[in-house]
Amino acid sequence: MTTTAPLAPPTTMRASVLRRQGEVVLDTLDVPALDDDQVLVQVAAVGVCGSDVHYYQHGRIGPYVVDHPLVLGHELSGRIAAVGKDVDPSRLGQRVAVEPQRPCRTCAQCKAGRYNLCPDIEFYATPPIDGAFAEYVRIQNDFAFDIPDTVSDEAAALIEPLSVGIWACERAGIRPGSRVLIAGAGPIGIIAAQAARAFGAAEVHITDIAQDRLDFALQHGATHALNPRTDSVEGLDVDAFIDASGAAAAVRSGIKAVAPAGKVILVGLGADDVELPVSFIQNREIWLSGVFRYTNTWPLAIQLVADGKVDLDVLVTGRFGLDQAEDALNAGRQPGQLKAVVYPGK
Amino acid sequence: MTTTAPLAPPTTMRASVLRRQGEVVLDTLDVPALDDDQVLVQVAAVGVCGSDVHYYQHGRIGPYVVDHPLVLGHELSGRIAAVGKDVDPSRLGQRVAVEPQRPCRTCAQCKAGRYNLCPDIEFYATPPIDGAFAEYVRIQNDFAFDIPDTVSDEAAALIEPLSVGIWACERAGIRPGSRVLIAGAGPIGIIAAQAARAFGAAEVHITDIAQDRLDFALQHGATHALNPRTDSVEGLDVDAFIDASGAAAAVRSGIKAVAPAGKVILVGLGADDVELPVSFIQNREIWLSGVFRYTNTWPLAIQLVADGKVDLDVLVTGRFGLDQAEDALNAGRQPGQLKAVVYPGK
Amino acid sequence: MTTTAPLAPPTTMRASVLRRQGEVVLDTLDVPALDDDQVLVQVAAVGVCGSDVHYYQHGRIGPYVVDHPLVLGHELSGRIAAVGKDVDPSRLGQRVAVEPQRPCRTCAQCKAGRYNLCPDIEFYATPPIDGAFAEYVRIQNDFAFDIPDTVSDEAAALIEPLSVGIWACERAGIRPGSRVLIAGAGPIGIIAAQAARAFGAAEVHITDIAQDRLDFALQHGATHALNPRTDSVEGLDVDAFIDASGAAAAVRSGIKAVAPAGKVILVGLGADDVELPVSFIQNREIWLSGVFRYTNTWPLAIQLVADGKVDLDVLVTGRFGLDQAEDALNAGRQPGQLKAVVYPGK
Amino acid sequence: MTTTAPLAPPTTMRASVLRRQGEVVLDTLDVPALDDDQVLVQVAAVGVCGSDVHYYQHGRIGPYVVDHPLVLGHELSGRIAAVGKDVDPSRLGQRVAVEPQRPCRTCAQCKAGRYNLCPDIEFYATPPIDGAFAEYVRIQNDFAFDIPDTVSDEAAALIEPLSVGIWACERAGIRPGSRVLIAGAGPIGIIAAQAARAFGAAEVHITDIAQDRLDFALQHGATHALNPRTDSVEGLDVDAFIDASGAAAAVRSGIKAVAPAGKVILVGLGADDVELPVSFIQNREIWLSGVFRYTNTWPLAIQLVADGKVDLDVLVTGRFGLDQAEDALNAGRQPGQLKAVVYPGK
Repeated sequence: MTTTAPLAPPTTMRASVLRRQGEVVLDTLDVPALDDDQVLVQVAAVGVCGSDVHYYQHGRIGPYVVDHPLVLGHELSGRIAAVGKDVDPSRLGQRVAVEPQRPCRTCAQCKAGRYNLCPDIEFYATPPIDGAFAEYVRIQNDFAFDIPDTVSDEAAALIEPLSVGIWACERAGIRPGSRVLIAGAGPIGIIAAQAARAFGAAEVHITDIAQDRLDFALQHGATHALNPRTDSVEGLDVDAFIDASGAAAAVRSGIKAVAPAGKVILVGLGADDVELPVSFIQNREIWLSGVFRYTNTWPLAIQLVADGKVDLDVLVTGRFGLDQAEDALNAGRQPGQLKAVVYPGK
Repeated sequence: MTTTAPLAPPTTMRASVLRRQGEVVLDTLDVPALDDDQVLVQVAAVGVCGSDVHYYQHGRIGPYVVDHPLVLGHELSGRIAAVGKDVDPSRLGQRVAVEPQRPCRTCAQCKAGRYNLCPDIEFYATPPIDGAFAEYVRIQNDFAFDIPDTVSDEAAALIEPLSVGIWACERAGIRPGSRVLIAGAGPIGIIAAQAARAFGAAEVHITDIAQDRLDFALQHGATHALNPRTDSVEGLDVDAFIDASGAAAAVRSGIKAVAPAGKVILVGLGADDVELPVSFIQNREIWLSGVFRYTNTWPLAIQLVADGKVDLDVLVTGRFGLDQAEDALNAGRQPGQLKAVVYPGK
Repeated sequence: MTTTAPLAPPTTMRASVLRRQGEVVLDTLDVPALDDDQVLVQVAAVGVCGSDVHYYQHGRIGPYVVDHPLVLGHELSGRIAAVGKDVDPSRLGQRVAVEPQRPCRTCAQCKAGRYNLCPDIEFYATPPIDGAFAEYVRIQNDFAFDIPDTVSDEAAALIEPLSVGIWACERAGIRPGSRVLIAGAGPIGIIAAQAARAFGAAEVHITDIAQDRLDFALQHGATHALNPRTDSVEGLDVDAFIDASGAAAAVRSGIKAVAPAGKVILVGLGADDVELPVSFIQNREIWLSGVFRYTNTWPLAIQLVADGKVDLDVLVTGRFGLDQAEDALNAGRQPGQLKAVVYPGK
Repeated sequence: MTTTAPLAPPTTMRASVLRRQGEVVLDTLDVPALDDDQVLVQVAAVGVCGSDVHYYQHGRIGPYVVDHPLVLGHELSGRIAAVGKDVDPSRLGQRVAVEPQRPCRTCAQCKAGRYNLCPDIEFYATPPIDGAFAEYVRIQNDFAFDIPDTVSDEAAALIEPLSVGIWACERAGIRPGSRVLIAGAGPIGIIAAQAARAFGAAEVHITDIAQDRLDFALQHGATHALNPRTDSVEGLDVDAFIDASGAAAAVRSGIKAVAPAGKVILVGLGADDVELPVSFIQNREIWLSGVFRYTNTWPLAIQLVADGKVDLDVLVTGRFGLDQAEDALNAGRQPGQLKAVVYPGK
């Protein structure tokens, strides 16, 4: 908790704007107006996600097209700089991790506790909703979660990808003693490996074609590393397989590594249609699904980081100012890079 | 219960034997010897299943090859004619429906209550285990279930496919008010439709390209019928989709009819590998799995038939003696045929 | 659906007010003002619940004290007479069943899909929240559910107690083939019996000391009736026991009727502390819980009534105008009475 | 694994026999004969459980009466000394932890994966089944679990009470981030605390009236310690409460510490009937149950010990030869004692 009251926020702010495919500029925008149940967050740190890069490079993701200027970034932390009129003003100055989505709260999915499946959900940095490469963002009060002083701004921002990993582990039914296979040792794969260990997994096998990523994964969550070019995963008979690669071949071979009654959770985004070993799934009564973001994961994610069970700071391999947002979006192309972070206040 | 004691069984019996692909003959075999925990069942009725026909026509199903003479048939009812030494002799004469599988009871799957996934399970009419196109079969005592007098021999035999339908409904999470799509209005599709209604489904949409099957399904379980040649199922947003067709196109379009958080259960056997709409599954967090036979379904199946909630007798469209087993295997090729039944005692 | 537009609602209305314990008067109140997400419902029918009677007779239920005038009634149906500014005006004139509670939608329980456990929930006819013995009530738009023309006003009002029965059945894990024991053949017991049958229960045993209630229950859901004065339920070994009596002796004996791994759901309100057979619960690993109202039950409840699986109209044994509300509250004292209904528009 | 073949077992053995209440003698018994599916285990270590002490002191537990000489002890490890004819002889010499129960494998509970609820289950040291205060015991092959060299004989014996703790945690739904309350810091309470941490609990509050036990618990699993004489647990709002005390007052106050939708698992054995806060349970929809031994817990328990997530060796506070079994049974009366171990081979 801060002990000094924050200054009143300004009316305009700097933001990094994706004008169109491949064109990012620093611009001045109005500070967002607050609904009664919202808070204004002065952004401290924003992680760069693969989806940000995809919008930057391709101008679209599936049906979502960047046909108006869009602020990217949805992995963020900050400090509450203003509150809507229904929000307790004692929250002012609080450091928070932001869950960057807004469900309707009234549909059947929301009321059943699956608000990530709300058909009217809004999500940061998804056209036409602006994201967090900006000095300020607004969010509903209950989607801004207090973080303890021991959690860094960067780690607080990366609660978002950790939430993906936690949600994958929950859906994969990972529990004490589980044996798990994860395909892909990028940020999500490594985070999922750490989450799986925090869920009690006894073995976490991870696959990647990059040896440096495998080495890193072995230091941060994985118990076994395999290179699919030389090692086969078939016959591992794991309890759960989490795909964090989006590669069709990895998905297919990963499924064949799953024991009867095991689970497959597809996190990585790849082709819309993929040929799957259906008779294998049937004969083993394997359950297969995916994750679409997450629901109610922030409290646990913050707890795991605060308790030292998950280490997010080790993932940060690049740091950028707001005026360097384009560099941050390009950083992932270089070898050894895992996660770039943008600091809008610097 | 019978009131007259059965005669002691003979030492040899008539059986219909698949010598090799396409060749079925009537033969004389030894009556099976009983283990201590088994009963001998004098077979009353045996339903013909698509897998029996497949062995007859192709000589194999996947890795299971008919390289020795094999007795087909695994949907059966009968009467207990002898008991092993650990079995209560009061069971003699009891009419029973037979669950035609033998798990090891000691592996992790068996002890977890998933004995259908036992890696050492034996199943009737699957090489090298003989089936029920014979005057007698043996089965573990607890896999021979009492049937009330109000249930016919044919219905008792068809408890086996009903078990497939029940297991599919259980795994599909069908509950009161569910909206369900079933692809394929053959015996399994119609039985699954009836089972879904017994589980409380409010709507059961069924698809088939044969109008007579659709008409029949509407009379026996389905609430809506669709012909995929003219009707689309996309957008139905059902809670569960059960594929009883094995057709890749039906599987793909059926998945796209499923609501967020819904379930897909693949019952029909088709190609080993099928292209599936993976991003659709991910975005809706749909769960997809299959059924591999069933576990602990006989008591409920018998109850549903005895209570009149499922009508199996209406499925029987052909009746054959043991010497007509080959005709029974060929009966399904004719239009309007749903289920052929063989009577080994006649 | 109505085809004529409703008149604009008036600014004042008649309401039956509980001034203090035992004193009910007809009064004129302001028609409630609407929040943006609310609708105004012109009340058609209101069922009288035991909790209404308890407030009338005792002036309090546990910590809730009638220290200001209170409008009773929380089982209601009606027609939408006005809509808040965020509500689709096409809902005007729609016949609806009202779920009479208002959760906060932002706490952990709400977001987990358990909004009935929201610590800040408001509930009709619970001090200081007014209920439905009035010409008009307000409710959030998504808690007013469309009802088909085939469902009567009375049945639509009694969707509320049916929701209690459905919620009890869900928590009791009732499924096809279940064997169920229900203690108490009052309105909730009979409704729970019907709900259990709709969930597929094969046997529903009901107990009561009033033979006329047992007879009625046997006609409307129960398959077996027992009088605890002469019949014991121990040894029934049911899958689930639902207490709708609130009587300690019934709870204790009912628990002893439950099979290993079975469930006990306590619906009836009785003493705060009850001596329970704890070692019996431990040895059989029975799960025991209660219901606190319901969550997300209206759609299924309406479906079950519309499909004829549950008959609520048979429960109505008394009909009263708004000026007869006190008579309605006293009606339950007479033999043969199950459910009194008040019609505020008459 | 041993590298030397074991000697053939003798035909007689020494055993400590409870002749009647309060009278324990060293005697010579026949080495048990093996069924085909059993192994003979040369006992290495046996933990003394409260139930052993209760039989010794009172001559009975509930309906189980010591009316014939009985060998006590059911927490044991050892080495396979002989195998039945259906068992792989390569198991000879293997160090094992023994799950000391024998379910029927054919009843509905067994086949549903709940073999601990088998009505015909046999359990060590429960009249008339002998236990493990003897040089040799017999057990079904699949209930003798391999233990790695890194796990001591004592820890392998205490896999049994750890299984109780694991089973309690599973039934209590403990998962990453859970907040847990445990009443009673005896061996089961401390083991449950360690198990809860292994299941990911973020907080484990433990209560006891003995300060030395609280201190010990804080070093081995608990995060917070409370003395009920001075501290109240009400309002803790934990996700799960595990009672390991058997004390009615602890059970009652523990229940009131549980959050809405939380769980209560009663492990401790106390009075048959206990007054519980039923309306509190109802209003919060708390689930309450108990544990009856365990099902399928040995593999995970061994894993947790082998991985160092649970430390059982620290619990051993007394070591005794077979001729000192009575001393071992009396050891628990002395302050500071947690777990006595008997070594039948010494």
